[in-house]
Amino acid sequence: MGDVAVIGVGMSRFTTYQGTKDIEDLGYEATTKALEDADIAWKQVQAAFCGSALSGNVVGHRVLNLVGMTGIPIVNVENACSSSGSAFRLAYQSIASGRYDVCLALGVDVVPRGLILDASWPIYQRVMGFNVEPASYAMNARRHMADYGTTIEQIAKVTVKNRKNGSLNKYCHFQKEVAVEEVLASRLISDPLRLLMCCPNAEGGSAAILVNSRKFKRTKAVIVAASVLTSSMFGSPGTDVGMGTIMTPINPDRTEAAAKEAYELAGLGPEDLDLVETHDAFASAEISHYERLGLCGKGEGGRLIDEGVTAINGKIPVNPSGGLMSRGHPVGATALAQAAEIVWQLRGEAGPRQIPHARVGLAHTLGGGPNCSIIILKGQR
Amino acid sequence: MGDVAVIGVGMSRFTTYQGTKDIEDLGYEATTKALEDADIAWKQVQAAFCGSALSGNVVGHRVLNLVGMTGIPIVNVENACSSSGSAFRLAYQSIASGRYDVCLALGVDVVPRGLILDASWPIYQRVMGFNVEPASYAMNARRHMADYGTTIEQIAKVTVKNRKNGSLNKYCHFQKEVAVEEVLASRLISDPLRLLMCCPNAEGGSAAILVNSRKFKRTKAVIVAASVLTSSMFGSPGTDVGMGTIMTPINPDRTEAAAKEAYELAGLGPEDLDLVETHDAFASAEISHYERLGLCGKGEGGRLIDEGVTAINGKIPVNPSGGLMSRGHPVGATALAQAAEIVWQLRGEAGPRQIPHARVGLAHTLGGGPNCSIIILKGQR
Repeated sequence: MGDVAVIGVGMSRFTTYQGTKDIEDLGYEATTKALEDADIAWKQVQAAFCGSALSGNVVGHRVLNLVGMTGIPIVNVENACSSSGSAFRLAYQSIASGRYDVCLALGVDVVPRGLILDASWPIYQRVMGFNVEPASYAMNARRHMADYGTTIEQIAKVTVKNRKNGSLNKYCHFQKEVAVEEVLASRLISDPLRLLMCCPNAEGGSAAILVNSRKFKRTKAVIVAASVLTSSMFGSPGTDVGMGTIMTPINPDRTEAAAKEAYELAGLGPEDLDLVETHDAFASAEISHYERLGLCGKGEGGRLIDEGVTAINGKIPVNPSGGLMSRGHPVGATALAQAAEIVWQLRGEAGPRQIPHARVGLAHTLGGGPNCSIIILKGQR
Repeated sequence: MGDVAVIGVGMSRFTTYQGTKDIEDLGYEATTKALEDADIAWKQVQAAFCGSALSGNVVGHRVLNLVGMTGIPIVNVENACSSSGSAFRLAYQSIASGRYDVCLALGVDVVPRGLILDASWPIYQRVMGFNVEPASYAMNARRHMADYGTTIEQIAKVTVKNRKNGSLNKYCHFQKEVAVEEVLASRLISDPLRLLMCCPNAEGGSAAILVNSRKFKRTKAVIVAASVLTSSMFGSPGTDVGMGTIMTPINPDRTEAAAKEAYELAGLGPEDLDLVETHDAFASAEISHYERLGLCGKGEGGRLIDEGVTAINGKIPVNPSGGLMSRGHPVGATALAQAAEIVWQLRGEAGPRQIPHARVGLAHTLGGGPNCSIIILKGQR
């Protein structure tokens, strides 16, 4: 397997465009910014992988038609929230195997009407009679509270931390801090989760240029140490989250399995990470992600929040970008937005939210199914 | 690049199930048949690629949850009509690169309500004010008739040939022959195309098991000599089909480019082919596909039909399965159904439609965008 590097990233702001921008606009913006950042011409790109979950057919073709059709293979990937993580992985593997030297990974989504209905497919409705999200996350939160004494205040503090980080990020939908009291006083959505513990919908595009690093030397290059995908679904064995077992999106087995595979592939462990972008679709989930990614032991996630370990100035900052909680969650575009944040941090270009001496970062995305995508990147500083 | 073989294929009948079977049922049937045909256990499969274009989110996960979730990566691919051809190619490349030894390629689709509306995305409506299919195919047909003297009778004979072949195939939606007069008397859909020149909608699943052939020896194995994908879209340069240039689905550049790449990869030419499965979404398209795939010179496609060259007992049988015209076209499942027919023919298992001494076959699928997927398979007989 060859050496693979990210030499350019780009994204649109993630927000609700209310029809003023479509996937073509958002994907074009992300792609052209990534090409410019990489200092590479579009005609040098040999294959493109586009992750999108909500925006219809041949999304990559619709976007790249605007950039210019060069005849390269374009593969559209739909792995729910992990769509662009899966696109990144296909680009990574295509280069690592020697098949290509330059690939585009793209993620883009807008919010269609009827989104919430789409998220609950028949098997859920038949079995449980309710919508999968946020109910499954709520049940997982309750289970974590019951098992480990995690408190609702700790869950609220995740939102507060991420919104604070997001206030420093021009790409975020929300760029305004919130207080714990405000989070706890927001409308109840699915007990115990309140509105400000749920990430907002958003629309946006994100992109990365991956290359064979032996052939393309760039001082800004960031090495891909690992890119993995695991998939599972209902009732996978060995889970310990009660009802959540059959609920899927937060099924923690997949995160543990993916993290194990990614750490092995990278030859690194959680102790080597300088920052993490994790899938805080709901604030409660971030706490259990800490544990499943090995940042702490089982049941210690709440303590990490209380002690500020994962704050931007903590020992292991999590979601310095503001996370899904601030950025919003254009489903297919999220994983590459996480990767973009890590690239900027590893290059020392994160501005007011820069983590000093950041050298290794991990991006973690769950996707309905669930899929779990993990990307580990290493800087050259 | 290693050696890759198909050691098992399976499919459901393609037909309109009227809600009695869903994608889970159809994908399960295809997958379990392919596993059985391959004489391999599901737990031996290391990665799965699922092509689907019309059936919603995480289709592969929904199907494979029934087969059993083993934690392997599942990637859902959406490349319109080339979806399962693209899934096949990803499986092929994953094995050729040494990343995996056993992969599943799956295709499945049902017909959702509103399909025809979905097929015309805004850019068409804005520019041309009409639905892309069958109008673009109709314009390409008119262009071919004007340029080369191709007749409406020749186009009708494509339907007659394919329906005759389909009458011998239990997997087809239509299993009944039609006469030229019947085709010509059928309802006009988009001048010059009549109803029986248009392939029917259908629902179904198709699957193949691909392996590293050095590690898995099977007497029934069929070698993957090439699996390529090209993508383009509106107004790609160098086309010569007039208005059809901006119409895309039949944009012939992509077929020519993909065929060139596939022949080079396989070290074979059109003269080496013993059978072809081509994308006869409309009967007129099959005639120009002959030319673009190199089975004859430009403008000679009509002659091939008149002389019976592409009949099942002709020099180079095309669509011995009955093609899309008989089988119907469950968008994401079509390419792997073509591949399955070629596998059966190369193994001498095609029953009443067996082509004697078939050793090399090519499957060609166009997908809106257009994508063009080409797979070349070689038998061991």
